[in-house]
Amino acid sequence: MKLSKKIDLCELSPIRKFYPYVVAAERRGVKIHALNIGQPDVQTPSVYFDALAAFRQNVLEYAPSPGIPELIEAIRGYYLRLNVALDPADILVTTGGSEALLMTMLCILDEGSEVIVPEPFYPNYNTFIRAAGGAICPVHTKPEDGYRYATREQIEPLINEKTRAILVTNPGNPTGTVLTAQELRLLADIAKEHDLYFICDEVYREFIYDGGEKNTAGCFDDLKEQLILIDSVSKRFSACGARIGALISRNRAFLEAATKIAQARLSVATLDQIGAAALYGVEPTYFEATRQEYQHRRDVCYRKLKEIPGVVTTEPKGAFYTMAKLPVDSAEDFQMFLLNEFEDNGETVTFAPGSGFYATPGAGKSEIRIAYVRCAEELERALDLLKLAIEKYNNR
Amino acid sequence: MKLSKKIDLCELSPIRKFYPYVVAAERRGVKIHALNIGQPDVQTPSVYFDALAAFRQNVLEYAPSPGIPELIEAIRGYYLRLNVALDPADILVTTGGSEALLMTMLCILDEGSEVIVPEPFYPNYNTFIRAAGGAICPVHTKPEDGYRYATREQIEPLINEKTRAILVTNPGNPTGTVLTAQELRLLADIAKEHDLYFICDEVYREFIYDGGEKNTAGCFDDLKEQLILIDSVSKRFSACGARIGALISRNRAFLEAATKIAQARLSVATLDQIGAAALYGVEPTYFEATRQEYQHRRDVCYRKLKEIPGVVTTEPKGAFYTMAKLPVDSAEDFQMFLLNEFEDNGETVTFAPGSGFYATPGAGKSEIRIAYVRCAEELERALDLLKLAIEKYNNR
Repeated sequence: MKLSKKIDLCELSPIRKFYPYVVAAERRGVKIHALNIGQPDVQTPSVYFDALAAFRQNVLEYAPSPGIPELIEAIRGYYLRLNVALDPADILVTTGGSEALLMTMLCILDEGSEVIVPEPFYPNYNTFIRAAGGAICPVHTKPEDGYRYATREQIEPLINEKTRAILVTNPGNPTGTVLTAQELRLLADIAKEHDLYFICDEVYREFIYDGGEKNTAGCFDDLKEQLILIDSVSKRFSACGARIGALISRNRAFLEAATKIAQARLSVATLDQIGAAALYGVEPTYFEATRQEYQHRRDVCYRKLKEIPGVVTTEPKGAFYTMAKLPVDSAEDFQMFLLNEFEDNGETVTFAPGSGFYATPGAGKSEIRIAYVRCAEELERALDLLKLAIEKYNNR
Repeated sequence: MKLSKKIDLCELSPIRKFYPYVVAAERRGVKIHALNIGQPDVQTPSVYFDALAAFRQNVLEYAPSPGIPELIEAIRGYYLRLNVALDPADILVTTGGSEALLMTMLCILDEGSEVIVPEPFYPNYNTFIRAAGGAICPVHTKPEDGYRYATREQIEPLINEKTRAILVTNPGNPTGTVLTAQELRLLADIAKEHDLYFICDEVYREFIYDGGEKNTAGCFDDLKEQLILIDSVSKRFSACGARIGALISRNRAFLEAATKIAQARLSVATLDQIGAAALYGVEPTYFEATRQEYQHRRDVCYRKLKEIPGVVTTEPKGAFYTMAKLPVDSAEDFQMFLLNEFEDNGETVTFAPGSGFYATPGAGKSEIRIAYVRCAEELERALDLLKLAIEKYNNR
């Protein structure tokens, strides 16, 4: 039985691929410090659960295909507080940022189309782009340069007749890189000059450290046709399991195209939309407390990584991830060593090996991604284990 | 800005396209009897809401990509009661049957691939197949023949080197046609002989009338490689707004391919899965009561349609839809007349015009789809309005 060429070009998640070995280690009684998955431990605001419990209708009906009006209004209000004026028709509620990404790619990519994406990138981008028949054209960045990518010299040579879009995650997953206002504007200009979609995945918008300003491409009023924003409540409100996101664009033809898919899949889960609308009502103090907690974790993570001899890393300025180049030949082999051979006091550690975050063959082999979504104390221990394990691995 | 060729070939939902005129009519104070949308009025079992209200965890986390174990077990148990033995690894929980369909098409279709589908068909199939680069190859059926399609003579001449699958809805939307055990076996044989996927969308499985037996292609043990089942809780438990479905196959390579997309979209909403697992615990009496209510509605709908001079229709044997050929030149024009010109005692009626359910150009022009998802009394009135309106329309 044939499978499609496009699915053959997709891969299983590099973040989840060590799962069978994790299970085996846990069966042996080993405690795993998981630095591989971006599942925050921050409490979900209780208004979410309250809103669901208060639902009193006899029939759980389909919601309108573009989303329930309360949630669309809540999203609009949130953007207005960021000085971004949106029309309700600019917003399509989606099943997580994931659905917004897949819909976007299906709407804009033909067989052989290319999307320019700085690497290392969120690996699921590859699946969504491949599923739509396209391919990633990577802007290669390096740990030694702090993974920066937003210059004309790096982007423009990659543009050709197959290019349809520039896609960035800002703040960045997996690098924690935050674009400056000038860099964001430059990317917008390049997209505009070359008639490309500018897809900004801003799901980590609230997670900016060291007094950096939240910035969003939504503020560029001259980018009516080009701009596509990917949004989600998952990280913003620690509500990953709600699967509520949004596809936002002022380009009516594009959003009408996306609506064809939205209508075909009928609607997004009704109760999760009601809960998500309630989340947008939380006090602004919620964000500040969460941000401070993550900044503290970032500090711990960065300090501990710098203490490990031979590690190359850059202080992340946003999101809750960091990339690090380790003094090991292969991060994948090292991860297998951590799960199958290493333990200290019955404990070990997992991360996401770097190569899955790159499109360039062979790139990222010695790198890892760390998600600092656990408390400072756990992070300290996890990074001590990492340090110890590197010594043991290199002295085998 | 370019849109993809595949999205240009998709259309907005024919079921929802008259919505602006519905809104305008309602603003004029006209009461609309909606026969166009398959949103049941049957109460959602309260266990769904109870399960959500009982959720007590601090963090609403991502669920596992293939689905939560409780729901997978519940689905497995449900199939076991149908004498279909499944392995947990045969089941992928999806965001509605819709996501199961889109995933399937992305996994098996290349640019130019064809899927054999009896027409009239569920129009969203067209979007999912087009989005994956494929096209529907219709098995044309007619109201005069009761919309039957499952013969070698009708199917085999359509198979060519581009054909990847046969897709059927059983019981059928929009026709209400139910395959006999022999017909289902014949389709399975054809799929097997020609090495095609056999995609059975069985989301209306419980809705079978006149003492007909529930049948499922899941019972064919010799169809390990070919069979793909599309399932959903939407109609089974009147829980459309939960958006919980399932993709079921014993073909490991296929399900691993689908898992690539499942991992990329991370997970299905956590709480809806918990609620759906609870739904599978309802008493079997729930299904029987619902089935009886729909059979009664089916009786009313069929009797009233037969009373209208010039209508061609067949008694539907399952699901909760029927197609009817009206004595009008264009069902779309007639629908516009109903919304813009006609009213009786301040009331009018909407249906879904038939042409959107066909791939063959010009087919279904005088046909309509009716969803009999409202109580018998409302149906009586709606079909009286239809009769009256046909007279007025033809005597303009």
